[in-house]
Amino acid sequence: MKVLILHGPNLNLTGTREPEIYGSMTLDEINSRLVEQGRKLGIEVTCQQSNHEGALIDALHEACTWADGVVFNPGGYSHTSIALRDAVAAIGIPVIEVHMSNIYAREEFRHQSIISAVCKGLIAGFGWKSYLLGLKAIIE
Amino acid sequence: MKVLILHGPNLNLTGTREPEIYGSMTLDEINSRLVEQGRKLGIEVTCQQSNHEGALIDALHEACTWADGVVFNPGGYSHTSIALRDAVAAIGIPVIEVHMSNIYAREEFRHQSIISAVCKGLIAGFGWKSYLLGLKAIIE
Amino acid sequence: MKVLILHGPNLNLTGTREPEIYGSMTLDEINSRLVEQGRKLGIEVTCQQSNHEGALIDALHEACTWADGVVFNPGGYSHTSIALRDAVAAIGIPVIEVHMSNIYAREEFRHQSIISAVCKGLIAGFGWKSYLLGLKAIIE
Amino acid sequence: MKVLILHGPNLNLTGTREPEIYGSMTLDEINSRLVEQGRKLGIEVTCQQSNHEGALIDALHEACTWADGVVFNPGGYSHTSIALRDAVAAIGIPVIEVHMSNIYAREEFRHQSIISAVCKGLIAGFGWKSYLLGLKAIIE
Amino acid sequence: MKVLILHGPNLNLTGTREPEIYGSMTLDEINSRLVEQGRKLGIEVTCQQSNHEGALIDALHEACTWADGVVFNPGGYSHTSIALRDAVAAIGIPVIEVHMSNIYAREEFRHQSIISAVCKGLIAGFGWKSYLLGLKAIIE
Amino acid sequence: MKVLILHGPNLNLTGTREPEIYGSMTLDEINSRLVEQGRKLGIEVTCQQSNHEGALIDALHEACTWADGVVFNPGGYSHTSIALRDAVAAIGIPVIEVHMSNIYAREEFRHQSIISAVCKGLIAGFGWKSYLLGLKAIIE
Amino acid sequence: MKVLILHGPNLNLTGTREPEIYGSMTLDEINSRLVEQGRKLGIEVTCQQSNHEGALIDALHEACTWADGVVFNPGGYSHTSIALRDAVAAIGIPVIEVHMSNIYAREEFRHQSIISAVCKGLIAGFGWKSYLLGLKAIIE
Amino acid sequence: MKVLILHGPNLNLTGTREPEIYGSMTLDEINSRLVEQGRKLGIEVTCQQSNHEGALIDALHEACTWADGVVFNPGGYSHTSIALRDAVAAIGIPVIEVHMSNIYAREEFRHQSIISAVCKGLIAGFGWKSYLLGLKAIIE
Amino acid sequence: MKVLILHGPNLNLTGTREPEIYGSMTLDEINSRLVEQGRKLGIEVTCQQSNHEGALIDALHEACTWADGVVFNPGGYSHTSIALRDAVAAIGIPVIEVHMSNIYAREEFRHQSIISAVCKGLIAGFGWKSYLLGLKAIIE
Amino acid sequence: MKVLILHGPNLNLTGTREPEIYGSMTLDEINSRLVEQGRKLGIEVTCQQSNHEGALIDALHEACTWADGVVFNPGGYSHTSIALRDAVAAIGIPVIEVHMSNIYAREEFRHQSIISAVCKGLIAGFGWKSYLLGLKAIIE
Amino acid sequence: MKVLILHGPNLNLTGTREPEIYGSMTLDEINSRLVEQGRKLGIEVTCQQSNHEGALIDALHEACTWADGVVFNPGGYSHTSIALRDAVAAIGIPVIEVHMSNIYAREEFRHQSIISAVCKGLIAGFGWKSYLLGLKAIIE
Amino acid sequence: MKVLILHGPNLNLTGTREPEIYGSMTLDEINSRLVEQGRKLGIEVTCQQSNHEGALIDALHEACTWADGVVFNPGGYSHTSIALRDAVAAIGIPVIEVHMSNIYAREEFRHQSIISAVCKGLIAGFGWKSYLLGLKAIIE
Repeated sequence: MKVLILHGPNLNLTGTREPEIYGSMTLDEINSRLVEQGRKLGIEVTCQQSNHEGALIDALHEACTWADGVVFNPGGYSHTSIALRDAVAAIGIPVIEVHMSNIYAREEFRHQSIISAVCKGLIAGFGWKSYLLGLKAIIE
Repeated sequence: MKVLILHGPNLNLTGTREPEIYGSMTLDEINSRLVEQGRKLGIEVTCQQSNHEGALIDALHEACTWADGVVFNPGGYSHTSIALRDAVAAIGIPVIEVHMSNIYAREEFRHQSIISAVCKGLIAGFGWKSYLLGLKAIIE
Repeated sequence: MKVLILHGPNLNLTGTREPEIYGSMTLDEINSRLVEQGRKLGIEVTCQQSNHEGALIDALHEACTWADGVVFNPGGYSHTSIALRDAVAAIGIPVIEVHMSNIYAREEFRHQSIISAVCKGLIAGFGWKSYLLGLKAIIE
Repeated sequence: MKVLILHGPNLNLTGTREPEIYGSMTLDEINSRLVEQGRKLGIEVTCQQSNHEGALIDALHEACTWADGVVFNPGGYSHTSIALRDAVAAIGIPVIEVHMSNIYAREEFRHQSIISAVCKGLIAGFGWKSYLLGLKAIIE
Repeated sequence: MKVLILHGPNLNLTGTREPEIYGSMTLDEINSRLVEQGRKLGIEVTCQQSNHEGALIDALHEACTWADGVVFNPGGYSHTSIALRDAVAAIGIPVIEVHMSNIYAREEFRHQSIISAVCKGLIAGFGWKSYLLGLKAIIE
Repeated sequence: MKVLILHGPNLNLTGTREPEIYGSMTLDEINSRLVEQGRKLGIEVTCQQSNHEGALIDALHEACTWADGVVFNPGGYSHTSIALRDAVAAIGIPVIEVHMSNIYAREEFRHQSIISAVCKGLIAGFGWKSYLLGLKAIIE
Repeated sequence: MKVLILHGPNLNLTGTREPEIYGSMTLDEINSRLVEQGRKLGIEVTCQQSNHEGALIDALHEACTWADGVVFNPGGYSHTSIALRDAVAAIGIPVIEVHMSNIYAREEFRHQSIISAVCKGLIAGFGWKSYLLGLKAIIE
Repeated sequence: MKVLILHGPNLNLTGTREPEIYGSMTLDEINSRLVEQGRKLGIEVTCQQSNHEGALIDALHEACTWADGVVFNPGGYSHTSIALRDAVAAIGIPVIEVHMSNIYAREEFRHQSIISAVCKGLIAGFGWKSYLLGLKAIIE
Repeated sequence: MKVLILHGPNLNLTGTREPEIYGSMTLDEINSRLVEQGRKLGIEVTCQQSNHEGALIDALHEACTWADGVVFNPGGYSHTSIALRDAVAAIGIPVIEVHMSNIYAREEFRHQSIISAVCKGLIAGFGWKSYLLGLKAIIE
Repeated sequence: MKVLILHGPNLNLTGTREPEIYGSMTLDEINSRLVEQGRKLGIEVTCQQSNHEGALIDALHEACTWADGVVFNPGGYSHTSIALRDAVAAIGIPVIEVHMSNIYAREEFRHQSIISAVCKGLIAGFGWKSYLLGLKAIIE
Repeated sequence: MKVLILHGPNLNLTGTREPEIYGSMTLDEINSRLVEQGRKLGIEVTCQQSNHEGALIDALHEACTWADGVVFNPGGYSHTSIALRDAVAAIGIPVIEVHMSNIYAREEFRHQSIISAVCKGLIAGFGWKSYLLGLKAIIE
Repeated sequence: MKVLILHGPNLNLTGTREPEIYGSMTLDEINSRLVEQGRKLGIEVTCQQSNHEGALIDALHEACTWADGVVFNPGGYSHTSIALRDAVAAIGIPVIEVHMSNIYAREEFRHQSIISAVCKGLIAGFGWKSYLLGLKAIIE
């Protein structure tokens, strides 16, 4: 089983950016752990990050040619990008939306993700373990 | 570790009610599996269900005297009950909100849970396995 | 044919509460007349009232094991209870929403019943005869 | 007792238009049944239909010179016509609003009838029998 | 100078309809007085009334071939008719909107007239004398 | 008969301020004409202007000790001042709201006057003659 | 192939009304060109215009007995008429909504046509050629 | 004089729950003080608490058979319960709404109490002394 | 202990203005009683009233140089004045907002006071005794 | 005459993505046909597609150096991109907005295109022929 | 060059009021620095402050008789005063709106200044140096 | 001191695009002047422009490794990009938002910048000198 873990905008700064919200592990460390945990669960994990909405769309399009599922943290695009929503809806594979923080406990404009409706499910609030739970959800 | 799994209104009908949304397992079967899976994870799982908002509040109040955490599916009260929100905020233990269905892919009035903001995190869309992921989240 | 007539919150005060809106017949008198009229129409009528949202949900759940339909006046819960809406949608039998007063001629917050959408139909404005018309509608 | 049954826009197509919503009886057949049922109830029933908002207003104005009540299905004008609302409020006789479909279970713009507030009551969701219940309501 | 006085829907009932709002003079009496007062002011006054939105549009179109101005009470269409607004904007002559009642002291849906923006001015709240002030405004 | 003509904020600049909207007559010239026209109509006209909301309230309070009515142009306070509205409602004499420009044809925030509801009537759009029509309305 | 070209309210004034928006060709000239162009495309074109909402509904009802499609400019009714929307939805033939002006570049209340949702497609902004493109769309 | 002091949901946790908002006195201590102070003021004070909306309605209904007034803290139900509002309006005795915290200084969803409109008055922001002021208000 | 009682706009008319809402005692009588009652409670009470928003701000600024607290009835400015809100927040002494009427039972625009959030607490609905309760609240 | 046909996000998946909405022709096939049809109409057609908002802006900027017009399907960016709107407004050449589907018959968030206001016109609902009609519109 | 620096409500408290937002310099100190800096820039700076909306309007009116520009901090009136907006628009000289704090980072009701639209420009967030930048902007 | 001047979408067209709004200097000319002025102020100014939201995020991320501050004109992304807002909040250096035009005097959708809240301050309305004032603000 192959899974794409896709990180949206500003997540490359994880570890240094607002650590009280996002924790102090860097994205590389998180990715390493996910690849390792994936191996234990029998999943081949590939990680990508981009700050470009278009590049995230491209990555989703490509994923449907090789992956069995996507664990996707759309970051700030969650609340504004209909184009990303359309991309998720267009590719035939399950996408699970994850957020490290509990977006519902933050500013009001973060309470609505317009991408959730076309995902298989949503996991939010567990730091980097949101991704891990996402992986576990995808094998079920 | 002791965990309360708390089911809100109408979930007693699970298995017969709209099975295309909620699956065909009954609540008893789901509870059995969760107790069993809990045992494997080293968690003592107790399950309760009520259609009464007040009884759910009572259960949350009581839980803080014996449980280490709550996996809570507030059902239809998610979108309307400030009293339940206050109860979650008032007890000192972590509460994880779960939904079997992807509430963001249903009627608009189900898109906002006023309880999420005071929970530790949220998991939605994975059928009865939303509860299981909730248990896994609570031990992390 | 068996029908449950279910009265929501504050309807136990009918006859004394704001008689210019709800008339001066008590709920017992109304129930007697409905049982009697039901008998003439060949319907076995059972009447219940509760001020508890949860008890109304319980009553609806139970009704689907013995009744052919429900004539339901959700009172003040009409405008706020998604849990009751879910209960009506979950049981397989027809539910007819009735109101003694014309809710559309009263305060604006009474103009939208979130329960109507999952009922078979709605009858409002005819005093206690709204229930009677509900019974007639259910046999058709 | 004399009653006007007044049908609003597009109801002349009943029977051919979206039969899954409006049934397959034509308006003529419905009218015949209502006249017949009216006779049994001791009501002299007259039926009119128009697609013209102004003609419906004219009909209501005229009705107050000869009818004891009106059973009125304002169709699509229910949600937009303040002029019709004013006409209902201006004539001294009781008007009962009826809809064949359950308007609250359809598109959101059909959920609010601005005419209901000035009617005696409202009956919706019972196909052509909504009119029949309207007749029964008017004799009570 | 020639002026059209144009009365909208339900104004034919003036005198009998809600006299506490509209006064007890009939429309004929009002029209007579306006013709008479017009004569004193050197204005040839013509009066028309219709309950049909389309007929009011036709009357406005025609007026621009013979009248120097219009005193227009759009009644209930004031709040809903973009088509009437377009008609007022399309004809080259000044139109003055009048209302017998103070529409801002009534139900909220009467507070906005979408026609006012394209009129020369607005006069409301002076009973039948609103028309008279409208005539005086038009000669200035 | 004694009438107060009360001008609100910025009206002291009339004649120089945006003459394409307000005309090129100064406030003094307007006041002179109104006094003169008032004399012809048998009205003793007194004119006041203030940019201070509180001073306008004071003027209204005082007016009810000597005036038979007020012709009031609340200017920019029309859309924001509940205190002025309360003052108009509190004094027992008729107040007529006037505007030189057609406020409904300008920016959207000028479309709602919260003062209109407690005035006798409203006249807008006729330049300085709005005041004159207001005087004529008050004698009727 | 037979097509009805249906013009809504105020379009009879085309050519004289706001020519900077609607052009200087009269409706007769536009109709002539459309009939002629239709002939070239093998379409028998019939043109109708009315300022009456009800007459437009009648025309649509009738069209489904003889026409293969309708090119419809609902004018000001586009934004307010649910009754027209229901008429378009009720007749079985394709309807194409056209506007001469770009309604999205005008006042905000013109940005939403409640009729578009039940049409086959929409063409706006090309002057009288919007109709011509509508004809071409209908043959495809 | 007999007064019911009625505490809504989660108030049983007072003293332990968010003490920076609600203070550190337990509900029992507060009740003791209120009984004692009541005795000094010549009021027989009875205290009840429930987390159940229905039980609060029941308590209000019963109170009108023995109490001269109610001091009511509806807690989280203040903002959502039309059923409680109807109960307050239905019983003939004065009800005073109290809140320990200043609800207007907290989250926006706490700014509107739909119960206030049918109460005699409202007191908020003085900790447990809000109840005491409520008692004093009731004797006046 | 020194307390300023500050009355906002139109309260100088109390006793004559809408006595069914505000009672028939004049402001002078109310002030006398408050001074007297204050003396009993050991409070030196000073009373001020102004219709000028700016004068009320000035009074609040000054109060922080000599008073221990303010009992403030902002009248109609409650709903519109951010400047007054800022003044209350800027001075270091406790301010208690009072209203003689129950503002939540009146027009909708009176339901929100933007000043409440920065006050210590709010008391409304008890006529002139709202001030008295405010004094009692301030000594606690 | 030279025209740019510009396809926005996800349109590269046309033919495989939701074919019931977008048809089963691939984007390459559509482009071939448009080039071919363009040749017949005397238009040199160039086609571009990108999922990147910035790349679409770049393409529009460039187009104004070589093209006589643009036929632009902004896809999901239609509803969210003010930057694209500004790009369309900034380049001096006519842009025609096209959509393959009838966006007004889909989810509500697709009903408003913020780009339409600055385009020459809009064509929606005719599958790939929307582009073809766009080409025809551009030569007129 | 002569410039008026105009301070709105509560700014007289600067230095003592919420120093974490407004800094600890008093208004007098700020004014001294601005006069001094103005001298260096060749500007004759005059400073005024008032808590009275009307006095600020008066000051603006007067300024146009002697000043070349105004640097204006409308304080809390920024968000509520259409009368001030009208004053700014009415005087012929450039007005620059300044705020010491970043109003967009504070409560939501401070995010919209209705005065900005008629100013030359806006500067916010730089403490007392916002005024200084305003002076520099005015000479450019 | 090193400062990044970052220009958002469409600003590369400055000088040719709507010169009545943006002036006739090209972006290169503006950049030259800013570099030059920066040199005088002792600031090393670097200028970047991109139409790509992602590239702007990348530039901000990079800036925090070498720059002491950013003067940022987010153009059309100001009103829609939460991702850019998050980038500004994530980097530790001060960012000043600038706009050449007065965005509050333009279309309503330009009145709210969702980026302002996380910037140090905002300067708008002074043409290319907005950037210059931004530089001056950053050294203070």
